[in-house]
Amino acid sequence: MNDQVRLGIVGYGTQGSTYARFISEGMVPSMVVGAVADIDPARRQLAADALPGVPVHESFEALLSSGQVDAVITTVPHYLHPEMGIAALEAGIHALVEKPAGVYTQQVAELNRVAASKPDVVFAIMFNQRNNPLYRRLKEIVDAGEIGAIRRTNWIITNWWRPQGYYDQSEWRATWGGEGGGVLVNQAPHQLDLWQWICGVPKSVYAKVAYGFRRDIAVEDEVTAVVDYGDGATGVFVTATHDLVGTDRFEILGDQGKIVVEGSRTATVTRLVKPEQQLSAEMSTDEVRRMFMGQFDASTLQTTEVIEFESAWGGQHSGVLENFAQAILHGTELLAPGADGMHGVRLANAIHLSSWTGREVPLDFDETEYLTALNERIADEGKFPARA
Amino acid sequence: MNDQVRLGIVGYGTQGSTYARFISEGMVPSMVVGAVADIDPARRQLAADALPGVPVHESFEALLSSGQVDAVITTVPHYLHPEMGIAALEAGIHALVEKPAGVYTQQVAELNRVAASKPDVVFAIMFNQRNNPLYRRLKEIVDAGEIGAIRRTNWIITNWWRPQGYYDQSEWRATWGGEGGGVLVNQAPHQLDLWQWICGVPKSVYAKVAYGFRRDIAVEDEVTAVVDYGDGATGVFVTATHDLVGTDRFEILGDQGKIVVEGSRTATVTRLVKPEQQLSAEMSTDEVRRMFMGQFDASTLQTTEVIEFESAWGGQHSGVLENFAQAILHGTELLAPGADGMHGVRLANAIHLSSWTGREVPLDFDETEYLTALNERIADEGKFPARA
Repeated sequence: MNDQVRLGIVGYGTQGSTYARFISEGMVPSMVVGAVADIDPARRQLAADALPGVPVHESFEALLSSGQVDAVITTVPHYLHPEMGIAALEAGIHALVEKPAGVYTQQVAELNRVAASKPDVVFAIMFNQRNNPLYRRLKEIVDAGEIGAIRRTNWIITNWWRPQGYYDQSEWRATWGGEGGGVLVNQAPHQLDLWQWICGVPKSVYAKVAYGFRRDIAVEDEVTAVVDYGDGATGVFVTATHDLVGTDRFEILGDQGKIVVEGSRTATVTRLVKPEQQLSAEMSTDEVRRMFMGQFDASTLQTTEVIEFESAWGGQHSGVLENFAQAILHGTELLAPGADGMHGVRLANAIHLSSWTGREVPLDFDETEYLTALNERIADEGKFPARA
Repeated sequence: MNDQVRLGIVGYGTQGSTYARFISEGMVPSMVVGAVADIDPARRQLAADALPGVPVHESFEALLSSGQVDAVITTVPHYLHPEMGIAALEAGIHALVEKPAGVYTQQVAELNRVAASKPDVVFAIMFNQRNNPLYRRLKEIVDAGEIGAIRRTNWIITNWWRPQGYYDQSEWRATWGGEGGGVLVNQAPHQLDLWQWICGVPKSVYAKVAYGFRRDIAVEDEVTAVVDYGDGATGVFVTATHDLVGTDRFEILGDQGKIVVEGSRTATVTRLVKPEQQLSAEMSTDEVRRMFMGQFDASTLQTTEVIEFESAWGGQHSGVLENFAQAILHGTELLAPGADGMHGVRLANAIHLSSWTGREVPLDFDETEYLTALNERIADEGKFPARA
């Protein structure tokens, strides 16, 4: 291999063409575009026009066997991510899969099994939000125990308004058979990942999910999920695509502090001088009395830091591409190892399953029960084949 | 009756003595303190010292039959609110009960039945937050349909940190038999009332509740409840007494707008120019495309108003007292009719019951099932008699 990784871009739609532009414009120093593949002639023409000298293929298979690429990125409908990832890895081609890693856990498990059997081939996932310096810093703070053990989390993420025209753009969009879900598999996977990346993987979930609630679609456009981390710690995740005003507010309460993130841009981190239970136990009766008379100054018990980063648009994605290239070239540690894609898929599946059954669902739910229920919905649609 | 209502204050603790002070200081023009009752000699002495010339009784019954009061307020442990309210109303004495109206629904239903049979006797409840001008204004906005039908609500209210010493103050505090619950019956009743007053009464609830989670108490100190309003509309309510930093954030999403309240002080009200689904339907493919290129300006589709009120401390409580007096003297409409106390008690009971059974619980749950489960907890404590 040269000193630059030759990337094959599979699918030259909005994302694929954007990545090509990042690379062409030098935002990803360790990468060149080796080739492009798209099944749509119009898109192939767009690629040929935009990327002079870059081979453009009619199929993924042709690209894979061309000898023109060292790695691929799969900007294709979600169901295809695992099968293309598997094909690439088996051909010894490094694979960066788009999010979500897949639609249901079995196909992601198979992808992860193949990847594990190919330790020399790099497998990553486009969780570009992990490259948001704010979330990276917050993960450091939580991992270092600076706010203590996590007791409660709450994320409301509704700032991706999607009008009906968005859903009507293509036949597969917002269908069970074509896309495999709604806001959980399309818009929210980054947050489903960050939430678990920073706060840990829950043990169970109970969810209220509305399907085709405010849009004429089969899949979910509104989700409220309550998770249980065990030992009394809980979390809430709310997402929707019909809130034109939009909220992005993430709160993490720990034993010894708290983090409140507004708009994925500003985090207010409060650190208590001692664990909260210790402060509680040490407070005298007289202090309690003074507290109720408004004479208690909690500011001596805590410090507050406001963290804010300006993040250039595209910097997150190009950073993940560069990190992927560096991992291939120099063995650099991955920001988002491909196998991590399982967490978000598993949680999204569990949320669906809870809403379908009315039950609290463990994160190690019966995967066959989920796939059977998904296939029932695909059969009801009558437009796409069942999945196995 | 004179031109001033003679109020009997039952229980001369923190609240009772505060109300007496408000009245003595002229904050409640249509009221005087007619008499005080407390079973505790030390508190009777405090009352006698603070209120020269005001008769002080050893019992509620003595106060009620003294002929010295036209009305009473019950600042006593929660279980006693209904029985004292009933005794007052049956004696023809107007009753302002403290929140919560009671601990379990049957006793509140009995109170409401007696009150309904006494249409000439005024029955109110101390929901002083209804007198917060911010929440009154928000209720007007919602009732007038200015943000359309409600689709989602979310209230995180955790800014009442209570150290262990608070719970250790008295034998009845934070017990099943003495207090009947924790944060739901003590701190959160105002929000359980406002939430339903403004957004409507839900049909069912699913809750995760932690009992003695971060404090050495029998009752709940952490609650996450998901409610279903029917027709796909949902809500989340989170409360806790162990968050030293504290959050008070209330969000209401409607079909045609949104309200976000921070700290019960500042509300940002966004009104859409048309119902959201209509804006969605009317958006052209070209506009959708431009939206994804960051060229869509949603500001033309909405207006934003920030509402803020400075509320003098004590003004809410004294306002409810004055409104109660005016209702007695002049038939003025009550801010908080006593019967409304049922909503909060019913929801708190349903939240407990959901957490005890692991089930989603309808708001018209089996009241006997609740009382039986409550009595089991009282029996386990072994300190207080069962309730019937």
